[in-house]
Amino acid sequence: MIYTTQHTSGDSSARTGRFVTPHGPVETPVFMPVGTMATVKAMTPENLREVGTQILLSNTYHLYQRPGDELIRRAGGLHSFMNWRGPLLTDSGGFQVFSLSARCTIDDDGVTFRSHIDGSEHRFTPERVMEIQRNLGADIVMPLDHCPALPADRETLEASLRRTTVWAERCRSAGTGGGQALFGIVQGGTDVELRRRHLGEIASLDFDGYALGGLSVGEPKEDLYRVIEATAGKMPADRPRYIMGVGSPDIIIEAVRHGIDMFDSVYPTRMARHGTVLTARGTRTIRNAEYAEDQRPLDPGCDCYSCRNYTRGYIRHLIKADEILAYHLTTYHNLHFMGELMAQLRRAAEQDAFMQYRRQFWRQFYGCEPPD
Amino acid sequence: MIYTTQHTSGDSSARTGRFVTPHGPVETPVFMPVGTMATVKAMTPENLREVGTQILLSNTYHLYQRPGDELIRRAGGLHSFMNWRGPLLTDSGGFQVFSLSARCTIDDDGVTFRSHIDGSEHRFTPERVMEIQRNLGADIVMPLDHCPALPADRETLEASLRRTTVWAERCRSAGTGGGQALFGIVQGGTDVELRRRHLGEIASLDFDGYALGGLSVGEPKEDLYRVIEATAGKMPADRPRYIMGVGSPDIIIEAVRHGIDMFDSVYPTRMARHGTVLTARGTRTIRNAEYAEDQRPLDPGCDCYSCRNYTRGYIRHLIKADEILAYHLTTYHNLHFMGELMAQLRRAAEQDAFMQYRRQFWRQFYGCEPPD
Repeated sequence: MIYTTQHTSGDSSARTGRFVTPHGPVETPVFMPVGTMATVKAMTPENLREVGTQILLSNTYHLYQRPGDELIRRAGGLHSFMNWRGPLLTDSGGFQVFSLSARCTIDDDGVTFRSHIDGSEHRFTPERVMEIQRNLGADIVMPLDHCPALPADRETLEASLRRTTVWAERCRSAGTGGGQALFGIVQGGTDVELRRRHLGEIASLDFDGYALGGLSVGEPKEDLYRVIEATAGKMPADRPRYIMGVGSPDIIIEAVRHGIDMFDSVYPTRMARHGTVLTARGTRTIRNAEYAEDQRPLDPGCDCYSCRNYTRGYIRHLIKADEILAYHLTTYHNLHFMGELMAQLRRAAEQDAFMQYRRQFWRQFYGCEPPD
Repeated sequence: MIYTTQHTSGDSSARTGRFVTPHGPVETPVFMPVGTMATVKAMTPENLREVGTQILLSNTYHLYQRPGDELIRRAGGLHSFMNWRGPLLTDSGGFQVFSLSARCTIDDDGVTFRSHIDGSEHRFTPERVMEIQRNLGADIVMPLDHCPALPADRETLEASLRRTTVWAERCRSAGTGGGQALFGIVQGGTDVELRRRHLGEIASLDFDGYALGGLSVGEPKEDLYRVIEATAGKMPADRPRYIMGVGSPDIIIEAVRHGIDMFDSVYPTRMARHGTVLTARGTRTIRNAEYAEDQRPLDPGCDCYSCRNYTRGYIRHLIKADEILAYHLTTYHNLHFMGELMAQLRRAAEQDAFMQYRRQFWRQFYGCEPPD
């Protein structure tokens, strides 16, 4: 997979770029909506295109369990199965094993866990995870990594880094399917020195792109920003740089500022299903009574399908009645917001005006000046 | 509201016709999808148009309680509120009061009931129900009627008919909003003699259309067919004829055969949400394990969005995972099926080939010959 930087903003490390997958090109910085169960909840593939989605993330852990990666392989792979013909990335399932499954026991060879659905016992090794991802057939796949719960002591972190490096090598040796790109994952918690050392190890293995893993998992935001600032610029400049599980505008903007290119998170879609929408003036919890008779669109400045056709009052009614259309309209709007945000970040970087856009966004969305 | 018969099939009483509402024309026979809470579950208005929906039914009882008819009036009426710009019909709420609410007590002036949502006490009278429906602003409104639970003894039925007639007169006197049409409702249980007598009373009041109420509520199908056969032809020929709450293909076809023009039911949408789809070869319960690896569309002969883009296996996976997209795709397909069925019934009647189509449909869908 070839990545090309197109422009770096004169005022920061924010950069625009482009890479091409077997299912089409991706312009970066890019946000990837999450389609855990081979569907982005409440959206059709056409809807996703309409809101500017370039690439989706789907979860190996979930698909492995239901409907099963072998079934998806027999159905022609994940693209065919879910009728998404654009680029796809699958995570390795490691993060979900550690966060969702029951009784997970890790050893140097892999991890044994019980399904969160039926309690059955399963085992992921680097080789097994690559096999599953070959069956799913995403354009970009991720190696099995070890993300210890934070905060973790130095010894635990060191052990997790050793494992993650060895597993990354084993994943590379196990091999991808035709045309699949494999990224490396950098761990190290919030310890900047460990992050940098591990980045060096992983980068020496020469992956198609690099990801910061194990962040945005509850650590203080200052720690997160510190790691991004200290690590992003050291990630190989000629490959896409990805920070996993990050999706709120503030963190995305800080990461782009320091040169990160790719993001994924359930943030906009989960917020939508809880009745909260993203607008230029910040978030609005539309399910609140104050919106019952509000005849304005979710965001008066937005031209998405939901905003062109429905009022806050109507959508609030649908939420209160638990109607499916509510979640469609709020999800549509929130993903459109994310698509627009990323397009604006790209535009600002192209125009060497990233920091100005950042300040303007913070003032409008958060009602205050950005940090620093 | 002007109704014009366009053609009556040479082989039966099946007829095609057309009436024009303030929100556009309706070609009959027509099936009205049900949008109980001011939304047809899992469908956008654009989706409804795509599957051939001409007119929607919405429920006065539900909207009165949530979000309230006054709120909808202030939002510009039901069309604006839900962004459905085509024809709309609201029922009177009577049927739901008797079937859904708790502690409902009826007297000659109206009915007092407790909300099924919060237990609060409410009262519907003919005048109140007309006021609510003026607030909602549908194109066609229905008078409050008394539908006793079946089977009912002669005395109960007689009393319900007396009330329904008096209430129909009071609704007519209360008046509709600008441009609204008011239909009359004929009751009488499964007693053909009572049905005919009541039809005479209601028809003498001169409504814009006539409906058979209190049917398809659990009575044997032979009784239902008997009432349709004995009553439909006696309903005024120069007005639309509507049978309320009927939606399965067999009953629709029998009713069209005898000259009925309008239908509504949650049948296709509710079936869809239970994972069952309507196909040319009958119903299929897609949630069943047999479809897990089925790479065919829901109905290989169907050209709807769902069938052009997704496999049974994928939709079955979405159903098992309880994903919103499942209910969108199955609802879309089932309403497309109903739209196609009604278009084919109209075409068959136009071509004097209604009975031939009926036989062919029964053989394909039910795998047997039609009754009689």
